[in-house]
Amino acid sequence: MSAAITGYHAVEEAIRSGAAGAVLFVSKGGRRIEELIGLAKRNGIVVKREKDAAIEKLCGHHDHRGFVLTLDKPILHEEHSLNDFLAGLEAENSLVIILDGVTDPHNLGAVMRSADQFAVDLLIIPQRRAAHENETVARSSSGASAYVPVVVAPNLVNAAGELKEHGFWVYGADVEGRPAAQVDLRGRTALILGSEGRGIARLLRERCDALIKIETKGHVDSFNVSVAAGILMYEARRQQWP
Amino acid sequence: MSAAITGYHAVEEAIRSGAAGAVLFVSKGGRRIEELIGLAKRNGIVVKREKDAAIEKLCGHHDHRGFVLTLDKPILHEEHSLNDFLAGLEAENSLVIILDGVTDPHNLGAVMRSADQFAVDLLIIPQRRAAHENETVARSSSGASAYVPVVVAPNLVNAAGELKEHGFWVYGADVEGRPAAQVDLRGRTALILGSEGRGIARLLRERCDALIKIETKGHVDSFNVSVAAGILMYEARRQQWP
Repeated sequence: MSAAITGYHAVEEAIRSGAAGAVLFVSKGGRRIEELIGLAKRNGIVVKREKDAAIEKLCGHHDHRGFVLTLDKPILHEEHSLNDFLAGLEAENSLVIILDGVTDPHNLGAVMRSADQFAVDLLIIPQRRAAHENETVARSSSGASAYVPVVVAPNLVNAAGELKEHGFWVYGADVEGRPAAQVDLRGRTALILGSEGRGIARLLRERCDALIKIETKGHVDSFNVSVAAGILMYEARRQQWP
Repeated sequence: MSAAITGYHAVEEAIRSGAAGAVLFVSKGGRRIEELIGLAKRNGIVVKREKDAAIEKLCGHHDHRGFVLTLDKPILHEEHSLNDFLAGLEAENSLVIILDGVTDPHNLGAVMRSADQFAVDLLIIPQRRAAHENETVARSSSGASAYVPVVVAPNLVNAAGELKEHGFWVYGADVEGRPAAQVDLRGRTALILGSEGRGIARLLRERCDALIKIETKGHVDSFNVSVAAGILMYEARRQQWP
């Protein structure tokens, strides 16, 4: 499966950026869809009429608005290596997310969607999943997986070490940490999230410069991991973006 | 199905608060689980040994740590009415979440989990779901649904109006809004979230005092609604809590 994009702005941008092998599927009419069709044709992109059910299947959810753009892109936008990323690093503010033990592909897809929204510079995941799981990741990410740079790291402890050598502060998300809003997350920030049940692995946790938490007053343990990831990305970018 | 709670602190607290009809199911040993068993027995709570698969089924996910507490509580903790809530309102800072068209029970469960974490004062949802859907909500909420006060409002536009009469500022989450961090969300704040595809219904949107958004730089349209809800609850409480 290739990536699938819904939403006017996202589809417009993908068409304008010259998406090779893209196909625009439409099931409805209307001014904005006609505009998309025109734009697609001017950019040499194939347009196909389909039924709603087919559109729904292509984008993996029913919240489309009668169109979907499928891309002939890799499902996961993997970088060559962490070294390449670090060598090319220019921006003063950088946000790297490390997922330790987030194995559920739906959760990973939801994290990717937020990572795209917050323009996360790099997502580091510990190991390659089976291909059918990557499809679920791509679908759950609503196409964001084609945009978020991913490194599959053989060893997260080493990856955290390399980031630190390049001026990153490495934070672990942990209920014993300081409230994130009270911590200065500007500059080069890497943030590790563990699994909902077990948290961050001990060796990796020990590698952290500090632990941060989301301040809460709840009865039930912990957030959904994709919600926690979204909140901490938000807090980091709230501080980093002017 | 009754509510199911995992996590040491949450289970400990539920046992201490005298959970009527509660049952503690355990599949593993270990010091902390033995402590929970002791605490349960001292509080007259039934303890049952079960296999991992049974525990998993009871809590609805595999991120338990070998135990789950089931509660004989209503699945949704529904208030009698919005009037009762408004009449009893004392706190200076209050956070009400209104969900317009969030129909997927998994998303609703995830929103409830965050609502519990941020001690949301009231969650308003538009209509009663079928009972089997409420079970999915409860399971997806990891037990939080038993704690979050819910009003099922016959008409969200009227509910927003009543909140405004009681000093609430009503904000709609919308990409055309002002960045949430630049808006003063202290005091009595109600926040409306629409469905991922269609946003907030027009009449309800017109009722809002202002629109707010999560500042993003992404390619793909919008967040998962439960992530967006979590981020906006976080931002409101970041401003409200001392």
